[in-house]
Amino acid sequence: MERQELSQLIENAKAHYDELCTQGLKLDMSRGKPAPAQLDLSVEMLTHCLDGEYMSESGIDCRNYGVLDGIDEAKRLCMPMLGVGHDEIIIGGNSSLQLMYDTIARAMLLGVLGGKKPWSKNEKVKFLCPAPGYDRHFAICESMGIEMITVPYKEDGPDMDMVESLVASDELIKGIWCVPMYSNPEGITCSDEVVKRFANLSPKADDFRIFWDNAYCVHHLTDTPDTLLNLLDEAKKTGKQDMVFMFTSTSKISFPGGGLAVLGASAANIEFIKSQMTYQTIGYDKLNQLRHAIFFKDFDGIKEHMRKHRAIIEPKFAVVLEKLDKELASLNFGTWHKPNGGYFISFNGLPGTAKRIVELCRNAGVVLTGAGATYPYGKDPEDRNIRIAPTYPTVEELSKAMEVFCTAVKIAACEALLG
Amino acid sequence: MERQELSQLIENAKAHYDELCTQGLKLDMSRGKPAPAQLDLSVEMLTHCLDGEYMSESGIDCRNYGVLDGIDEAKRLCMPMLGVGHDEIIIGGNSSLQLMYDTIARAMLLGVLGGKKPWSKNEKVKFLCPAPGYDRHFAICESMGIEMITVPYKEDGPDMDMVESLVASDELIKGIWCVPMYSNPEGITCSDEVVKRFANLSPKADDFRIFWDNAYCVHHLTDTPDTLLNLLDEAKKTGKQDMVFMFTSTSKISFPGGGLAVLGASAANIEFIKSQMTYQTIGYDKLNQLRHAIFFKDFDGIKEHMRKHRAIIEPKFAVVLEKLDKELASLNFGTWHKPNGGYFISFNGLPGTAKRIVELCRNAGVVLTGAGATYPYGKDPEDRNIRIAPTYPTVEELSKAMEVFCTAVKIAACEALLG
Repeated sequence: MERQELSQLIENAKAHYDELCTQGLKLDMSRGKPAPAQLDLSVEMLTHCLDGEYMSESGIDCRNYGVLDGIDEAKRLCMPMLGVGHDEIIIGGNSSLQLMYDTIARAMLLGVLGGKKPWSKNEKVKFLCPAPGYDRHFAICESMGIEMITVPYKEDGPDMDMVESLVASDELIKGIWCVPMYSNPEGITCSDEVVKRFANLSPKADDFRIFWDNAYCVHHLTDTPDTLLNLLDEAKKTGKQDMVFMFTSTSKISFPGGGLAVLGASAANIEFIKSQMTYQTIGYDKLNQLRHAIFFKDFDGIKEHMRKHRAIIEPKFAVVLEKLDKELASLNFGTWHKPNGGYFISFNGLPGTAKRIVELCRNAGVVLTGAGATYPYGKDPEDRNIRIAPTYPTVEELSKAMEVFCTAVKIAACEALLG
Repeated sequence: MERQELSQLIENAKAHYDELCTQGLKLDMSRGKPAPAQLDLSVEMLTHCLDGEYMSESGIDCRNYGVLDGIDEAKRLCMPMLGVGHDEIIIGGNSSLQLMYDTIARAMLLGVLGGKKPWSKNEKVKFLCPAPGYDRHFAICESMGIEMITVPYKEDGPDMDMVESLVASDELIKGIWCVPMYSNPEGITCSDEVVKRFANLSPKADDFRIFWDNAYCVHHLTDTPDTLLNLLDEAKKTGKQDMVFMFTSTSKISFPGGGLAVLGASAANIEFIKSQMTYQTIGYDKLNQLRHAIFFKDFDGIKEHMRKHRAIIEPKFAVVLEKLDKELASLNFGTWHKPNGGYFISFNGLPGTAKRIVELCRNAGVVLTGAGATYPYGKDPEDRNIRIAPTYPTVEELSKAMEVFCTAVKIAACEALLG
């Protein structure tokens, strides 16, 4: 584009932006929160679910103490989410983030199965962090002083050449994060080849673990959803099953504030984790486990329920994509793609524009996830990536918010190109 | 007693014991679990509580993400339990054990407010453990490799001469456990003087903390309950309020499996803990917090509710005490006293008899808490203390179980005395 065209474009965009700023907007696309209508889908769980039903199928009073790893029916409900067996699962509290944090805290303080010492007894602990990724994963590492090494994403998952080479050469690399399906924020699902390469990693550290956060395993947005190979199954084939920790939750199925968190791993890992976890708690909330088992009945119930979620949020993704297409497709000011599931649309602007776009949006009353948040230490090396979370606002709000967003992209891009 | 008398006594006891063994008993006095009738007191909380009510009083949708430290009405409900203010409390998940474990794990990994380094960066970490005490407190220390130093209990709390002298002289002593009211298992409540001496401790370690587990703060068994001075208030008078971590829960008020855990501390400590905890979770289960706030309404509601618990469990304590009085009072084979609250009756037998008593009971079908469990490392130096938990069995079961227990005491005592 010529300078003159750009000048004209930015002038128009600024005029539009000024007008938008006068509207007193207060819109939030910053977090992957379900909308109230989505939460309404599960409210029966809170009322008629436990009318006189407090006993688990094996005769445990769910109101009382006990059962560290979860009641059978809750396990059975959640096992297919991760593709694990009855002795390969622990049902946790209301937060898979907490399960992940606690798993790392235990590894740091006490060590993992087969490890010779706690991670924290090394001079340093390092994690591989495919990015753009989930800010709260990176924050756990940062809070514990774990050094993060950024690994770029390719079309079908993390750059496995880099991953293989790094883990094979550095004993201080103890873990890697991965959201394998509909990744946060890129919406990428790991290809079969990538999963197999994960399952076949040969880390120098004998206490290395893959943190496989399958948060969006049933969160499809299309009739032809992505498919993901089962990492634990693949790892069993290579005899490396103890290298795998898998996580998921019902936070975006039932309630973010009151769902079930799930940890999946080899039977040996689960036994070992239970032997450590027994000092932390007598058991998680079994009443909530029973609620979920009664309400959803089985995995088919969850899948059916997710279709209702899809009906609510698919139009929201559509608005975002339509606006991006309409306003920006012809301009080469950034790239994005339509995810087949998950909670985000990832926008990659011109280098050096992400912070500016977020700032412009904020000043016009539209809150986005902070630029850089999707990278370790909050530092996007190219200042390009912005995570758009379309689920919480209404379609009308999203339409307005995307108007602001696209206008901000135009201004920021023109500013960058005009220098 | 003459040898002849003892021989006669043990012969009779053994005959009685053999007869009891033929009855195929299966009774459990091992854990402080509420009975089903106690759990029934709160079942309304699980059904009609949340009919269309999901918003907190400040307009937070309790179903969704957010609110790290708890919704206002849950805080207000629990603040009087510990005697703390709105900025001195965090409402946790369903387990105060977990809050305690996590607090120590954070101190080990990250350090406490004002500490120069994480506890784990010391060559060693030590805790003072008043004993007999709560086995799960000691187990947390043991699991983390924290060296435990046993401090004896006196009539009005831990031996404070010893506590003061130890903490003042050893920088590696980073904490002390205390169940200040109706202690587990002795039922002792700390006197005002003991609380004041706690509040005025001058530890050599600048990152020392008192773990004040006020689990039985409203669990009275009499019209003239014990009273406990507020440790945090006392510590404020000495400017040492950051030395205090207080815990309680509704586990034995509402549901052990689905109650609310509570952490109380100075506002500065709470701010600091929240800054660390924010990496672990986005928030605990606010729906359960709302349930509790709606069901109990306020602290008076909790107190009223605890009177109903008392009505159920007081007769159980009475059976245990009656049996002990009737069978053993005249024999000098052990001591015990009637607690004014809490969940246990503590029996101190002749030295060297506790393990034998527990073994005899087990062989007759009566499960007791393992002998030694009330001491660090499971080692009762005199092999004397047995914790009796009367709440879970029925009155009839307790009567039978205590018949076994008293018979076992007689046999073990006679064996010890006969040599």
